[in-house]
Amino acid sequence: MSDIQFPSKILENAVNEFSKLPGIGRKTALRLVLHILKQEKESAYQFADAITTLADEIKYCKSCYNISDSDICSICSNPRRDHSVVCVVENVRDVMAIENTHQYQGIYHVLGGLISPMDGTGPDDLTITPLEEKLKSEEVKEIIFALSTTMEGDTTNFFLYRKFQQYPVKFSTIARGVAIGDELEYADEVTLGRSLVDRQPFEKNAL
Amino acid sequence: MSDIQFPSKILENAVNEFSKLPGIGRKTALRLVLHILKQEKESAYQFADAITTLADEIKYCKSCYNISDSDICSICSNPRRDHSVVCVVENVRDVMAIENTHQYQGIYHVLGGLISPMDGTGPDDLTITPLEEKLKSEEVKEIIFALSTTMEGDTTNFFLYRKFQQYPVKFSTIARGVAIGDELEYADEVTLGRSLVDRQPFEKNAL
Repeated sequence: MSDIQFPSKILENAVNEFSKLPGIGRKTALRLVLHILKQEKESAYQFADAITTLADEIKYCKSCYNISDSDICSICSNPRRDHSVVCVVENVRDVMAIENTHQYQGIYHVLGGLISPMDGTGPDDLTITPLEEKLKSEEVKEIIFALSTTMEGDTTNFFLYRKFQQYPVKFSTIARGVAIGDELEYADEVTLGRSLVDRQPFEKNAL
Repeated sequence: MSDIQFPSKILENAVNEFSKLPGIGRKTALRLVLHILKQEKESAYQFADAITTLADEIKYCKSCYNISDSDICSICSNPRRDHSVVCVVENVRDVMAIENTHQYQGIYHVLGGLISPMDGTGPDDLTITPLEEKLKSEEVKEIIFALSTTMEGDTTNFFLYRKFQQYPVKFSTIARGVAIGDELEYADEVTLGRSLVDRQPFEKNAL
């Protein structure tokens, strides 16, 4: 499709813009653009406006770096959340995934990435300094690492654990094991092995 | 994801707008929106601007109803195209697909859909009257039907063929047969049968 002849520069420009999005090829982009053209003009304005507003008005919480409509996000400003427990995550999607479980009452800290020498992401590219400030000034009692079990996640976990050794804080990571509802025979061996080593008293799980 | 809690109304609104596009679910929409947030603001403005311009400025050629930047599209206004041959297609994508073959020198007529009683699309919803005007006023010698081989495509073909019987025009349809490069054993039997009935003199294909 690279040498495709568009009947209109405006159409071509819109297709090019959509093609810049991740996972959207030129054929899909054309389909999306023709869909927008079929709608009322009002829908297109509304769509464009949502994007402009997104770029202009979205903020990042000054405390946890989560996406927010205000300077301090609704989680950090909620007095009913436990501000002594901080869950360290990679990005906003992880916050949303954990919030969706309705199992967590503490606050978050969004790193904005993981340490990855391959991608050129070092500790200075992440929000590690503000996290340390939080440890210094606030009454944080526990840090929960909820990062991916990838090389980057493990590296970041280890880096933070070493860096924050001096603070009187309890460190924990989310439990790894066989997913609920999964058949044992299909679990990968690393996860299955880990689930045996980290076995839990039966009563605790049989609530 | 329907009960997902967004940390921001602005984020939620943008995700909702993206979810309205065909084939874009809420998870994909969130991924696209977070991608836009990661870029420079300038990219987001450019994207939104492409959509607004699309809605505001795109035109449909007054002669063939193809998408165009001007009142008459670049194909209809090209004196080197053969204006006596009109290829009837369903939509703009079909025009682009045929143009991409570089095998066609005539002009087009975009119907804007196919007759489909199931979807409530009748002849009056299509650009059939302007096509008839073209037959009346211009020196059209041949109409090529290049519509889908679906029930809707066949119905539309037949409707147009009957309606335009009175005009001294040659009617043809694009050739149907086994695709070039395809193995015979994998061709469906209707196509294979049709390719035998419509067999062509050998010399013609062995150019």
